Amino acid sequence: MKHLVEKRLAQVQRALSDHDLDYMFLSISPDLFYLTGYSSFVSERLHLLVIPPEGRPTLVFPDFEKGIVEHLADWIDVVGWLETEDPVAFVRATLASGDRDRPIRVAISDHTRAVFLLRLQAALPQARFSLASEVLAPMRRVKDEVELRLLKEAQGRAVQALQQLVELPFAGRTEQRVAADLRRFCADRGLEEGFGVQLGAGANGAQAHLPPSDRVIQRGEPVMIDFWAAYEGYYCDCSRTLHVGPPPPEFQEIYAIMREANHAALAAVRPGASCQSIDRAARQVIDEAGYGEHFFHRLGHGIGIEIHEEPYLVEGNEMHLEPGMTFTNEPGIYLPGRFGCRIEDVVAVTATGGVSLTDYTHDIVEVE
Amino acid sequence: MKHLVEKRLAQVQRALSDHDLDYMFLSISPDLFYLTGYSSFVSERLHLLVIPPEGRPTLVFPDFEKGIVEHLADWIDVVGWLETEDPVAFVRATLASGDRDRPIRVAISDHTRAVFLLRLQAALPQARFSLASEVLAPMRRVKDEVELRLLKEAQGRAVQALQQLVELPFAGRTEQRVAADLRRFCADRGLEEGFGVQLGAGANGAQAHLPPSDRVIQRGEPVMIDFWAAYEGYYCDCSRTLHVGPPPPEFQEIYAIMREANHAALAAVRPGASCQSIDRAARQVIDEAGYGEHFFHRLGHGIGIEIHEEPYLVEGNEMHLEPGMTFTNEPGIYLPGRFGCRIEDVVAVTATGGVSLTDYTHDIVEVE
Repeated sequence: MKHLVEKRLAQVQRALSDHDLDYMFLSISPDLFYLTGYSSFVSERLHLLVIPPEGRPTLVFPDFEKGIVEHLADWIDVVGWLETEDPVAFVRATLASGDRDRPIRVAISDHTRAVFLLRLQAALPQARFSLASEVLAPMRRVKDEVELRLLKEAQGRAVQALQQLVELPFAGRTEQRVAADLRRFCADRGLEEGFGVQLGAGANGAQAHLPPSDRVIQRGEPVMIDFWAAYEGYYCDCSRTLHVGPPPPEFQEIYAIMREANHAALAAVRPGASCQSIDRAARQVIDEAGYGEHFFHRLGHGIGIEIHEEPYLVEGNEMHLEPGMTFTNEPGIYLPGRFGCRIEDVVAVTATGGVSLTDYTHDIVEVE
Repeated sequence: MKHLVEKRLAQVQRALSDHDLDYMFLSISPDLFYLTGYSSFVSERLHLLVIPPEGRPTLVFPDFEKGIVEHLADWIDVVGWLETEDPVAFVRATLASGDRDRPIRVAISDHTRAVFLLRLQAALPQARFSLASEVLAPMRRVKDEVELRLLKEAQGRAVQALQQLVELPFAGRTEQRVAADLRRFCADRGLEEGFGVQLGAGANGAQAHLPPSDRVIQRGEPVMIDFWAAYEGYYCDCSRTLHVGPPPPEFQEIYAIMREANHAALAAVRPGASCQSIDRAARQVIDEAGYGEHFFHRLGHGIGIEIHEEPYLVEGNEMHLEPGMTFTNEPGIYLPGRFGCRIEDVVAVTATGGVSLTDYTHDIVEVE
């Protein structure tokens, strides 16, 4: 970890100079976790890592949590504020004295709460704020081997949880009840932090983003499931559409189109391809089958220490894929009032193409 | 719900006029949940409720989630943006045409991410932003009867989970293992969202905010537990310090001081008392016993739809208590390298004093 923190900090400090930035401010966020492994409960108490282009960064944090930050002392100065003190004054004090009045440029973590940003803007009226993601997203969106291994492990555990779920009866139980089982099966496999699930039977599945309801699942209905959680900080994200009992021909037909779109997208993945070209590859299949208006969301999103991060696979995004990028491939077709279907895999870009990290059948899984 | 939304919206709109504000902007946040019952997954996709001082508010949201916002249409206009569109342009378009260029004052939810605030500031350079909490916190910090009932229910469920936990053996198991059991017992009682736990045995308990470790708990050690989660949107928050086997006299002595501080704080609660006076009541007991430096955090925090919210019980806060306010009463004494102890109850201010909503013994609970 120490080696990795040093490497990433050095990379950020070089990038600050390149971007003509005077400081980066990171509150508790995926960005801070990425750089230092440090994470804590996001609350009204400010934790802020102040990174200058050169020299040691300083972490301003609630003093009574010093036991949690001790291990950072090798490469970061730590400054604790007491419960009755103003943390923003400590942030200002960490700046080089010449920087407290001259115009400076500060990149701040995208997730920082408005309450902190407005206070920092008031305390540093000469600072011009921009987003830390301009510097960090290019680093974070290309995963190293350790990260790829963790992402593969997370997807593998998600698949195991799903395999356990499909052994249970669906008909006669509520969406919420089935979702609760899935949550438990995930937790049993270390997929607990950041857990979320969408699970819709029949017409509920036609709403791409609907939380599980108290509606009782019926035999003869498709059930669309999408769930996610972090394993050791790295997210799984998986969707499958099951069928309670034998699937009728019409569902099979729609499902086959959606599956073909998923395959077309994967086949289009290669270094140098644009993000929008992957979205288009899937969309073209669905458009040509006459269901274009029913695929109303982007194809996918990058995934790593956040469930959604760069790169986004969406029309208009001309970013080029690079080996080590990871994202979801999740085309869907949603027929209002009837049903929806989606397959979602996590894909990694390799030196020559794309590989799915989600090892679970694309056939319709029939459940009881 | 409809009646409540209308009432709270009307109250906010009156307050906007009183505060000379032109708009309130609420992203997915406890504030938005409080006003509308609307909640969703916080992500890179902007959801923003734009509230003018008069007339109907507008919710700008990702169009493909329309199924989730349909039920709001009675009192809110909804405007969906497509995946390839810029949501900030939609926010700008919702403003009265005269307001797109003249100086305006906008209160924004404290939790809104910097990524959205910076984009809104760029799109509306004539807007001066302040915090929505200036308007909403005075509403949110006084709970109505429904909220008090939910808070009492949440504390009751937390106590049940703790009662189940203390029946299990502690000695010989890791902190993480015991914490995982507690998480499960909470989940079994609907305490799942926002779950968190600190659990430290022996010297680990001397760090007020330490996540559970893989250290094996020993017979003869105190174990400090603090856990929280939301039940139907309202938080429980409970700390107790147990002892594995019979507690030795020195632990009993420290524990008794801390308990007396908790009781002194509760006894000081009444409408009109200042927040800092409650903190002082507890602190005085610990100071006089000679352990003042070992009680290094504030006495407590408000609790409701957030785990931490106003009012904060801390030196320097002169806010006066009112009936219906709810907060934690959690003095602690932490002896570095040895152990820590804390009791945390949730307290509600009544017409004449304070009442604990946490019905669990203040005696040392001996576990195996």
